[in-house]
Amino acid sequence: MNLWDALKREDIPSSLRICAGTDGSVTQLLEVLTGKTVNVRTQEQNVIKATPDIAELLEIKAGDEVNRRLVTLNVEEIIFVLASSLAPLKRMPKGMKDDLMRSDIPIGRILRDHRLETRRDILSIEMVHRDFFGDIPVISREYIIIYKKKVLMWINECFPVDERWRI
Amino acid sequence: MNLWDALKREDIPSSLRICAGTDGSVTQLLEVLTGKTVNVRTQEQNVIKATPDIAELLEIKAGDEVNRRLVTLNVEEIIFVLASSLAPLKRMPKGMKDDLMRSDIPIGRILRDHRLETRRDILSIEMVHRDFFGDIPVISREYIIIYKKKVLMWINECFPVDERWRI
Repeated sequence: MNLWDALKREDIPSSLRICAGTDGSVTQLLEVLTGKTVNVRTQEQNVIKATPDIAELLEIKAGDEVNRRLVTLNVEEIIFVLASSLAPLKRMPKGMKDDLMRSDIPIGRILRDHRLETRRDILSIEMVHRDFFGDIPVISREYIIIYKKKVLMWINECFPVDERWRI
Repeated sequence: MNLWDALKREDIPSSLRICAGTDGSVTQLLEVLTGKTVNVRTQEQNVIKATPDIAELLEIKAGDEVNRRLVTLNVEEIIFVLASSLAPLKRMPKGMKDDLMRSDIPIGRILRDHRLETRRDILSIEMVHRDFFGDIPVISREYIIIYKKKVLMWINECFPVDERWRI
């Protein structure tokens, strides 16, 4: 089973295939595609203590502080992405913590503003169901952002598969 | 004049807008779009001494050795991108030099294989003419890849604007 197989279904619009397959910023692609500004709407944001599972994911110790954020990326009220992220507070460069805890800044822009050199490693791409989007099929992908050889952030992005991507 | 204005013309296919606007790997996007492997065809590759202009671009000294590469990115014989790059030899991590001088490895894959943490800064995007593509209008963009706060590579990508992007 290849990482990219989930994107090969013919009913997936090209623009969605691209956003789900890029190793760059999804927000930037959405803005280029639509010619409009992407708005980030925060659904939840809090600081938690890492459970053993989260600690393993982020390669930290259980109990370490982690920023958890659940947001949607919207263009003119249409939701294109539901994005969930986990970021260990202790690994965040100075200044970035405040930006991440603000509700309205996409992660790609935060990395850019702080001029960070990073790498994105895609871990999985699959078709799933998410109550958030009702009966629509959803592409879910997981990736980590690596900074100074450690996990700066784990991200799960969910993309509804429907006509909204015919842009 | 905004960096992205050149991409706002309505006659530019979405898939081309995206490839020209991404801060990720163009090769990866082309492979996701077409579902096929991208082939790199080297037109020229040599090591030169930096002229004063090139030295300024790369923030090195005139006379420093620079790898210059001109390649096309093809999918089944169709040329999607003409890419020219300049890379100071002294800044290349061990092992990367051999890969870059081989003809058939896209730069995005070289960075990934060597697990480099980098940043891409787009410098310009504009409509131009290039004899290489005949009478077709061409989108040209320039960007630098930053590694350890220095310019690892300067890249110019030219994308022909026509029906081949309706994929």
